Amino acid sequence: MTRNRRILIRELPKGNLTTECFTTDEVDVTDPGPGQLLVRTLLLSQDAANRAWMQGATYRDAIEAGQVMASGGIGEVVASKSDAFSPGDIVWGDTGWQEYAVLEARGVQKLKSHKPLSHLISLLGVAGKTAYHGLINVPGIHAGETLLVSAAAGSVGSIVGQIGRIKGARVIGIAGGEAKCRWVVDELGFDACLDYKDTGTPLPKQLGAACPEGVDVYFDNTGGDILQAALFAMRQRGRVACCGAVSMYDGKPRPGPYGVPGLLVVKRLKMEGFIVMDYAHLDADAEHDLSMWAADGHLKVVEDILDGLEQAPAGLVGLLAGENRGKRMIRVAPDPN
Amino acid sequence: MTRNRRILIRELPKGNLTTECFTTDEVDVTDPGPGQLLVRTLLLSQDAANRAWMQGATYRDAIEAGQVMASGGIGEVVASKSDAFSPGDIVWGDTGWQEYAVLEARGVQKLKSHKPLSHLISLLGVAGKTAYHGLINVPGIHAGETLLVSAAAGSVGSIVGQIGRIKGARVIGIAGGEAKCRWVVDELGFDACLDYKDTGTPLPKQLGAACPEGVDVYFDNTGGDILQAALFAMRQRGRVACCGAVSMYDGKPRPGPYGVPGLLVVKRLKMEGFIVMDYAHLDADAEHDLSMWAADGHLKVVEDILDGLEQAPAGLVGLLAGENRGKRMIRVAPDPN
Repeated sequence: MTRNRRILIRELPKGNLTTECFTTDEVDVTDPGPGQLLVRTLLLSQDAANRAWMQGATYRDAIEAGQVMASGGIGEVVASKSDAFSPGDIVWGDTGWQEYAVLEARGVQKLKSHKPLSHLISLLGVAGKTAYHGLINVPGIHAGETLLVSAAAGSVGSIVGQIGRIKGARVIGIAGGEAKCRWVVDELGFDACLDYKDTGTPLPKQLGAACPEGVDVYFDNTGGDILQAALFAMRQRGRVACCGAVSMYDGKPRPGPYGVPGLLVVKRLKMEGFIVMDYAHLDADAEHDLSMWAADGHLKVVEDILDGLEQAPAGLVGLLAGENRGKRMIRVAPDPN
Repeated sequence: MTRNRRILIRELPKGNLTTECFTTDEVDVTDPGPGQLLVRTLLLSQDAANRAWMQGATYRDAIEAGQVMASGGIGEVVASKSDAFSPGDIVWGDTGWQEYAVLEARGVQKLKSHKPLSHLISLLGVAGKTAYHGLINVPGIHAGETLLVSAAAGSVGSIVGQIGRIKGARVIGIAGGEAKCRWVVDELGFDACLDYKDTGTPLPKQLGAACPEGVDVYFDNTGGDILQAALFAMRQRGRVACCGAVSMYDGKPRPGPYGVPGLLVVKRLKMEGFIVMDYAHLDADAEHDLSMWAADGHLKVVEDILDGLEQAPAGLVGLLAGENRGKRMIRVAPDPN
């Protein structure tokens, strides 16, 4: 009998997420029922949204104690009770933090093979598509505009800023720590990157110096104080894409920024929330453009892969603390092809 | 020599606005200089925005102590040093709280005569146009949608809700006090009106009962706790028009609602701020439709006119406390025509 190592939620976090919130067990692999697949996990995507799911129902059901920790991942079909899938197929699904998952075939997506497989999570996965749709199809970006991006070294922000540069915008990042900011400029080609952890110069002052004529488009991955500073730095008729609120997922609910709704009125701002699947009908555009830009060398694919399922808890805790650069993943098993 | 009674700002409010913030004096009327007009004030518009101007520069300069209190108003040109205006012309301008104002002609707008003159401030003035553009040209409204309007008995809200009904939407108002809510339903024809002052049933619970399938469009005149409750009641892909934040003008700055930006992401909401003059190019549409609806009896024009310049301070304090129904104005002098 094949055994399945799993990481479960021992207890939902009351404050910040810690590795103590998780526990590991091992059970027998079960057979898929009618319409189900048995999938062997290869790569897990780590996302700030994983933490948000612990706060309650969002666009998916809430996660609860005792369950396998939820996570999107790439796997290989081992056994299929669905006509639509065969053993050996590479698929994307909600595998969770475990070596084997029994999944409903209707919730699973077949992937074209790709080398490396990890690009299907980074460049061509949720990260790349979120960056692409969230910039191109929500606020849009035009040559000569000033684009501000928070979590600029993160999986989405690192791509958003590079797309902004490709489109001719002036791109200012926000990240935590001097070394990370330098990397965003030197490695990703942003025009500048502001350090929100800089104790000498508060972010609003840095924003004033870096964007003296204000920000046309702000791509918000953080919410909280950074969103507040950005709202005050917006130009008249600026556009804000609300992608995520990583500063607010971990810990207690907090009120929104000062200036909501006052600044929206005075500056005639538009704020819009989106989720990547809203633009699934335009995924072909995203895949086409992202692949082309990466092949041309205009867009660097930055991945941060940790090896071994057991890295998942510390990997997610570290992601929430901002330790990753680019798309963080957990390699559970090597690409079989 | 003609004398000019004026109401000045004695001291800017530190907390809530009171009538003690104002003082009255009387000075000689001065002659207009080149390019200027001498205007006799007839009707003053009272707006929550007057209070917001005291908080600092917005889309207009901040108001300061020692100045005549700023206010838009309708006046009659008494003397003109501009080729564009003649004595007897009826004009709209920033007359302030005084019987006579010397105004730069380029900042003044000539009005077509209208009976009653007050309609040029209510139905066809900033109130009516703000309601029209802010609903029709910002979020838009479609038959069968649920429209929620705060400050529903106010100058703008009372018109927004009536336009929503004309367009076939289900219209829910929010107002303070049972009598006012009853008036919004009985007199203005809203489908329902929720009392945010009801101590028995908190607003979020009332919203859940009145809008079980959620709100498609929320027209926000208040900001603060009411905006927060509305955000939680929005449907997926709901639209929020940010018109004003009357709950936040008076007193200290306060943070924005919980759920910004998180709810915007999860529900894919769009929030957009606007100011009536952004849509000046569409004013002809507004004037045409509003006049037609009023003439047809589909739209009731509700005015709340106080007589005498000396009523202005108490009138504005009362407006901020929500005592008005419909468009509050101060009649300084009778219509000369």
